[in-house]
Amino acid sequence: MIPDALTQGQFDTVYNFLSLVIAAQLFTALFLTFGLSRILPRYRLAITVAIVVCGIAAYHYFRIFDSFKAAFVSDSVGGVDGYTAAVGESFNEGYRYVDWLLTVPLLLLELIAILALARKVQSGLIVRLMVAAGLMIILGYPGEISGDNGVRGLFGLLSTIPFAYILFVLFRQLSKSLATQPVSVRGTLSRLRWLLLLSWGVYPIAYLLPLLNIAGSDAWVAKQVGYSVADIVAKAIYALIIFYVARMKSYDDDP
Amino acid sequence: MIPDALTQGQFDTVYNFLSLVIAAQLFTALFLTFGLSRILPRYRLAITVAIVVCGIAAYHYFRIFDSFKAAFVSDSVGGVDGYTAAVGESFNEGYRYVDWLLTVPLLLLELIAILALARKVQSGLIVRLMVAAGLMIILGYPGEISGDNGVRGLFGLLSTIPFAYILFVLFRQLSKSLATQPVSVRGTLSRLRWLLLLSWGVYPIAYLLPLLNIAGSDAWVAKQVGYSVADIVAKAIYALIIFYVARMKSYDDDP
Amino acid sequence: MIPDALTQGQFDTVYNFLSLVIAAQLFTALFLTFGLSRILPRYRLAITVAIVVCGIAAYHYFRIFDSFKAAFVSDSVGGVDGYTAAVGESFNEGYRYVDWLLTVPLLLLELIAILALARKVQSGLIVRLMVAAGLMIILGYPGEISGDNGVRGLFGLLSTIPFAYILFVLFRQLSKSLATQPVSVRGTLSRLRWLLLLSWGVYPIAYLLPLLNIAGSDAWVAKQVGYSVADIVAKAIYALIIFYVARMKSYDDDP
Amino acid sequence: MIPDALTQGQFDTVYNFLSLVIAAQLFTALFLTFGLSRILPRYRLAITVAIVVCGIAAYHYFRIFDSFKAAFVSDSVGGVDGYTAAVGESFNEGYRYVDWLLTVPLLLLELIAILALARKVQSGLIVRLMVAAGLMIILGYPGEISGDNGVRGLFGLLSTIPFAYILFVLFRQLSKSLATQPVSVRGTLSRLRWLLLLSWGVYPIAYLLPLLNIAGSDAWVAKQVGYSVADIVAKAIYALIIFYVARMKSYDDDP
Amino acid sequence: MIPDALTQGQFDTVYNFLSLVIAAQLFTALFLTFGLSRILPRYRLAITVAIVVCGIAAYHYFRIFDSFKAAFVSDSVGGVDGYTAAVGESFNEGYRYVDWLLTVPLLLLELIAILALARKVQSGLIVRLMVAAGLMIILGYPGEISGDNGVRGLFGLLSTIPFAYILFVLFRQLSKSLATQPVSVRGTLSRLRWLLLLSWGVYPIAYLLPLLNIAGSDAWVAKQVGYSVADIVAKAIYALIIFYVARMKSYDDDP
Ligand SMILES: CC1=C(/C=C/C(C)=C/C=C/C(C)=C/C=O)C(C)(C)CCC1
Ligand SMILES: CC1=C(/C=C/C(C)=C/C=C/C(C)=C/C=O)C(C)(C)CCC1
Ligand SMILES: CC1=C(/C=C/C(C)=C/C=C/C(C)=C/C=O)C(C)(C)CCC1
Ligand SMILES: CC1=C(/C=C/C(C)=C/C=C/C(C)=C/C=O)C(C)(C)CCC1
Ligand SMILES: CC1=C(/C=C/C(C)=C/C=C/C(C)=C/C=O)C(C)(C)CCC1
Ligand code: NA
Ligand code: NA
Ligand code: NA
Ligand code: NA
Ligand code: NA
Ligand code: NA
Ligand code: NA
Ligand code: NA
Ligand code: NA
Ligand code: NA
Repeated sequence: MIPDALTQGQFDTVYNFLSLVIAAQLFTALFLTFGLSRILPRYRLAITVAIVVCGIAAYHYFRIFDSFKAAFVSDSVGGVDGYTAAVGESFNEGYRYVDWLLTVPLLLLELIAILALARKVQSGLIVRLMVAAGLMIILGYPGEISGDNGVRGLFGLLSTIPFAYILFVLFRQLSKSLATQPVSVRGTLSRLRWLLLLSWGVYPIAYLLPLLNIAGSDAWVAKQVGYSVADIVAKAIYALIIFYVARMKSYDDDP
Repeated sequence: MIPDALTQGQFDTVYNFLSLVIAAQLFTALFLTFGLSRILPRYRLAITVAIVVCGIAAYHYFRIFDSFKAAFVSDSVGGVDGYTAAVGESFNEGYRYVDWLLTVPLLLLELIAILALARKVQSGLIVRLMVAAGLMIILGYPGEISGDNGVRGLFGLLSTIPFAYILFVLFRQLSKSLATQPVSVRGTLSRLRWLLLLSWGVYPIAYLLPLLNIAGSDAWVAKQVGYSVADIVAKAIYALIIFYVARMKSYDDDP
Repeated sequence: MIPDALTQGQFDTVYNFLSLVIAAQLFTALFLTFGLSRILPRYRLAITVAIVVCGIAAYHYFRIFDSFKAAFVSDSVGGVDGYTAAVGESFNEGYRYVDWLLTVPLLLLELIAILALARKVQSGLIVRLMVAAGLMIILGYPGEISGDNGVRGLFGLLSTIPFAYILFVLFRQLSKSLATQPVSVRGTLSRLRWLLLLSWGVYPIAYLLPLLNIAGSDAWVAKQVGYSVADIVAKAIYALIIFYVARMKSYDDDP
Repeated sequence: MIPDALTQGQFDTVYNFLSLVIAAQLFTALFLTFGLSRILPRYRLAITVAIVVCGIAAYHYFRIFDSFKAAFVSDSVGGVDGYTAAVGESFNEGYRYVDWLLTVPLLLLELIAILALARKVQSGLIVRLMVAAGLMIILGYPGEISGDNGVRGLFGLLSTIPFAYILFVLFRQLSKSLATQPVSVRGTLSRLRWLLLLSWGVYPIAYLLPLLNIAGSDAWVAKQVGYSVADIVAKAIYALIIFYVARMKSYDDDP
Repeated sequence: MIPDALTQGQFDTVYNFLSLVIAAQLFTALFLTFGLSRILPRYRLAITVAIVVCGIAAYHYFRIFDSFKAAFVSDSVGGVDGYTAAVGESFNEGYRYVDWLLTVPLLLLELIAILALARKVQSGLIVRLMVAAGLMIILGYPGEISGDNGVRGLFGLLSTIPFAYILFVLFRQLSKSLATQPVSVRGTLSRLRWLLLLSWGVYPIAYLLPLLNIAGSDAWVAKQVGYSVADIVAKAIYALIIFYVARMKSYDDDP
C-alpha cells in the first residue's frame, strides 16, 4: 500500500534512490554505446540488447521519479515536517510491471546471446524463456493490483511456476555451457548465476511483503529502495558483466 | 466518445498502455539504429524507414500521453476515487489520424523496399499503395469527427475501398514475390501477411464501435488498449520482423 | 489578426496541423541524416543544409505549437464549448519571419549546391540569391506587424521586388542548367521549378489576405493550415526531392 | 537596469531575437558536426572547439530565453497592453558573464588552432590569450552588477587592459601569420580581423550605456538586440568562417 | 544548514555557479566525445569513463539546479528584496553523495586506466581503490545528514581513513609509475597529483564547516560555490588533462 505520509528523511531517501537508478541506467547505456565498436560483431546483439534494456529502465525511472515527486506534497517550509499523499496524483506502481514486460525477456535474450550457443539450441531456448518470462509478469499483475490477500497469494503462486522454470533452465543451461566457454570467462559466467538468482529473488520477496502483514511507510520505503538496488544489479551491473564477457571473448577470438 | 469519468483502474490502465507504446516504439527505433550497420546497403532503406516510423509513433504517443494526463483530473487523495474530464483540456483523438497519414504510407514503403523487387514493378507499386493509403486515412477522418452515425458509416465505407485495394495488392504481391525470395525468409514473409491483416484490421473495427452502439468508458478504455496493442504490432513488431528479413537477406547475399 | 475565439474544431485543426509539421520536419531531418553516408561527398553540402533547414523548422514549430497552446484557453469541460484568447499570452506570429530569415537563404543554397555548377557561377549565384532572400524577408516584416493596410501594401510591394528577382534567377538558372544535368534527374529538376513556385507563392498570398478584407477566425485557421502545408512542401518534400537527385547523381558518378 | 515594463512590441522583439540566437547557435553546431569528417585531423580541434562554443551559447540562450519569459508578465488578453516585471522572478543578466567566461577563451583557442602555427609559438599564445580573456571577464563583472557609476567605470577600465592586450596580440599575430597561410584563405583571414574587432567591440559599448545615462526600456531592448546580433556574429558566423578556412586548408594539403 | 533567506545577490551567485557547472560538465563530455576517435584504442577506456563521469555530473547538477530554483522563492518584483525558503520544497543536499558514489570510483578508474600499468597491478589497484572510495562516501553520509556535531565528527573521522588510504596509494602509485611513463607526459602527471590533492581536499573541508561553527547564509553560499569549483576541477579539468595525456601517449605509440 502506498503510505499516506512520509517523513522528510523517508521522502529524500526514496527520491535519492530513484534518481540514482536513472543515473546508473542512463550512463551504463551510454558507456556500452561507446564500447560497442570494440566488441566483435558476433557478440554485438547481446550488448545492443543491454543498451536497450538500460535505456528502457532509465525511461521508466524518469516516469516513476516524476510520479513520486507529484504524489507527495508538503506544507511546511523546506518540507521539514514531512510529506503527505497529494490530491489528484497517484504514485503509479504499475510502471514496474510495464518495465518488466519489456525488459525481463530482453535480459534473458542478452544472456543467451552472449553464450553464443549452437543456433538450434539458442532459438529454442530464447522462445521458451521469453514466453515463460511474459507469463510470469502477466500472471503476477492481477495479484499486485488486488487488495485481497487470497488473490495476491494465488497469482503469486501461479507466477512462480514460470519463474521456477526460468531459473531451472538458466541454471542448467549456464552450467552445461560453461565447459564450452573460453577459460577466461568461465569464472565470471559461473558467478553470474548467483548474481542473477540474488537480484531476481528480490522481486517475489517484495511481492510477498503485504502477505506477511509487513506494511507501513517504513516497509514501503524499504521496498522502493530494494527495487532500486535490485534494478541496478539486475540490469546495469549485469550489463557491465556481460560487456566484460563480450570483451574477453572478442579478444580470445581475435587477439 | 470521450468518457466523462474514469475509475482509477481505468485511468491507470490507459496510462500504462500509452507509456508502454512510447517505450516500445522508442527503443525499437534505437535497436534498429544500432543494427543498421549490419544490413547491406541495398536493404537499408527499409530499415531507415522503419526507424522513422517508430520514431514518429513515439513522438505522437508522447503527445497522446500528455494530452491524456491533462484531460482527466481527480479531486481525491492519491486519485483513489477516480478521474473526471478536466475543464479546458480535451483528449485529442485526431492525433492518431495525423500519425497514420505519415506512417501508413511509410509502412507500405518499408515492405516494398524489403522485397527488393525489380525497380520498375517497385516504383509502380509504391505510388499506387501510398496514394491509396493517403486516401484511406483522409476519407476516414470526416467520419471519425462527425457525431452523426450516417456520416460515420458513409465515410467508413468510402475509406474501406482503398483499404480493400491495399490489402488485395499486398497479398497478391507478397504471394507472387514469395517464389523469388530466398528460402530462409519465405516462411517469415508468408506469416507477415497475416500479422499485417490482423493488426490493420483493428483500426476499422475500432472505428465501427460507435455504430454498434458500443459506448461508455469501458468500451473507450478497450479502444485505447486495442489501438495501443495494434500500434505496437503494426509498427514495432513489424519493424523487427522486417529487420530479421533484412539480416537474413544480407547474410544470404554476402555470407 | 489573431482571433478572439476558436471553436473546438478550429482549435483542434490548427493544433493537429502544427503538430504534423513538427513530425514531418523532424523525421525528414532524421531520415536525411541516416541517408547522408550514401551520398557522394560532393553532394553532401546540399543534404547537410537540408537537414539543418528541416531541423530549424522543427525547432520553430515546437515554439509555435507551445505558443498556440498557451494563447488559447477554454473554460468548458473537455474544451467542447471552444477556446478564447488567453490573458497574458499571445500567439507570436513573428516566429515565422525569424524562421524564414534563417531558412529561405538556406533553401536557395540547397538548390544551388545540388546543381553542382561551375564554382565561379555558383558563388556568384549564392551571394546574389541569399542577399535577395534576406531583403525579401526584412522588407516584408514591417508590413506584417503593421495594423495599417497602406503600410502593409507598400512593404508587400517592396518585398515583392527581391521575390520576383529570386524567382526569375532561379527559373532561368534551373532551365539553363538542365542541359548539363544527368538525364536521370532532368525530369525531376524540371518539375522542382513548379513545386518551388507553387509552395513559395503561398506566403505572399497569405500576406495579402488582410488587404482583401478576408478576416475572421476561419480565414485565420485557413492561413495557419496554408502555412503548415506550404512549409512541409517547401522544406520537407523539397528536401526529399533534393535527396533523390543527390542519390541519382551519386549513382551516375560512381555506379 | 532591467525595465519595469515593456510594450508588446518590445517584448516580442526581445523574444524573437533570443529565440533567433538559440536557432542560429544550435544549428551552426549541428552543421559543423556534420562537416567535421570533411576536415583533415590537424584542423579538427578548431572545429570541435567551435561546436562546443556554439553549443554552450545555445545552452545559455535557452536559459536566458526562459528567464526572460518568466520575468515579464501581462494581464491583458493576448498581452496587447504590454508586460510588466513579474513578482518573484528576475531576468538574470549574469548569465552572459558565465557564458563569456567559458566561450571567450575558447574563441581565441579556435583562432589559434586554425592558424596552425609552430607548436612553440602556439602554446605560448594560447596561454597568454586565455589568461587575458579570463581576466577581462572577471574584472568586468563587479562593475556590471554594481549600481554605482564610479565602480562601473573603474572596473570597465581595468577590464579594458586585457581587452586591449588581446586585440593587439591577435592583430599582430594574424597579420604576421598571413604570409605563411595558403593563398586561398589569406583574404578571408584578413577580413576576419575586422569581423572580430567589430563584434567584440559591441560588448564594452553595451557596458558603457549606463555611464552615458542611456537608460529606459528602449535602451534595454536595444542592448538585448545588440548582444544577440553580436553573439551570432562572434560565435556562429565566426565559426562558419573558421570552417571555411579549415575546408580550404584541408583541400590545399590533400586535394 | 540550508538558510532561511538569501539576498538577491546570494541567490544569483549560487544560480550562476550551478549553471556554470552544468555547462562545463556537459560540454567537456561533448568535447571528449568528439576527440575519442583520435585516441588509440588502448587509452579509450579512460576517456570513455571521463565522458561518463562528466555526463553523470551534468545530470546531477541539472537536478541540483532545479531543486535550488524551486526551494527559494521571492515575493518582490524582480526578486530584488531577496528570497526565502519555499513551502513544500527542499534543497536536496543528498544529491551530492549520490553523485560521488557513482563518480568518485570512476575518477579513480580513469586515472588507473590512463597509466596503463601491467594488467596484474592494475586490477588489484582498481578493486582496492574503488572499494575504499565507496566506503569513504558511505561512511561520510550519516554524518552529513545528522544534526549532531558529535555524530558528524565521528563519521567524518571514519570516512577519513579510506580517504587517507586512497591519497596514499595514488601518490605512491603515481610517483612510482612516473619512471615508466613517456617523457612527454611525466611533468603533466606529476602536476596532476597536486591538482587531485587540492580539489579532493575541498570536500572534507566543506564537511567540517558546521563543526567550526561556521554557519549562516554566507557560509552556505561559499560552500555551494566551493563545491561547484571543486567539481569543475576534479571532473572537467581533470578529464581534459587525462585527455591530453591520452593524446600524447597515442602520438608517442603511433606517431
Ligand atoms: C516470481 C514472482 C514474480 C517475479 C518477478 C520477477 C522475477 C521480476 C524480475 C524483474 C527483473 C529481473 C527486473 C529487471 O531489472 C512477481 C511478478 C513479482 C509476482 C510474484 C511471483
Ligand atoms: C478501413 C478504415 C480505416 C482504416 C484504417 C487503417 C487501416 C489504419 C491503419 C493504421 C496503421 C497500420 C497504423 C500503424 O501503426 C479507418 C481510417 C479507421 C476508417 C474506417 C475505415
Ligand atoms: C513576396 C512577399 C513575401 C514572401 C515570402 C516568401 C516567399 C516566403 C517564403 C518562405 C519559405 C519558402 C519558407 C520555407 O518553408 C512576404 C515576406 C510574405 C511579404 C509579402 C511579399
Ligand atoms: C572590454 C570590456 C568588456 C569586454 C567584453 C568582451 C570583449 C566580451 C566578448 C564577448 C564575446 C566575444 C562573446 C562571444 O560571443 C566587458 C567585460 C563588457 C567589461 C567592460 C570592458
Ligand atoms: C574525507 C571525507 C569526505 C571526503 C569526500 C571526498 C574526498 C569527496 C570527493 C568528491 C569528488 C572528487 C567529487 C568529484 O568531483 C566526506 C565524504 C565529505 C566526509 C568527511 C570526510
Ligand atoms: Na511533491
Ligand atoms: Na510494484
Ligand atoms: Na491529470
Ligand atoms: Na481515433
Ligand atoms: Na490552452
Ligand atoms: Na506570419
Ligand atoms: Na511571461
Ligand atoms: Na549583461
Ligand atoms: Na524560485
Ligand atoms: Na553536501
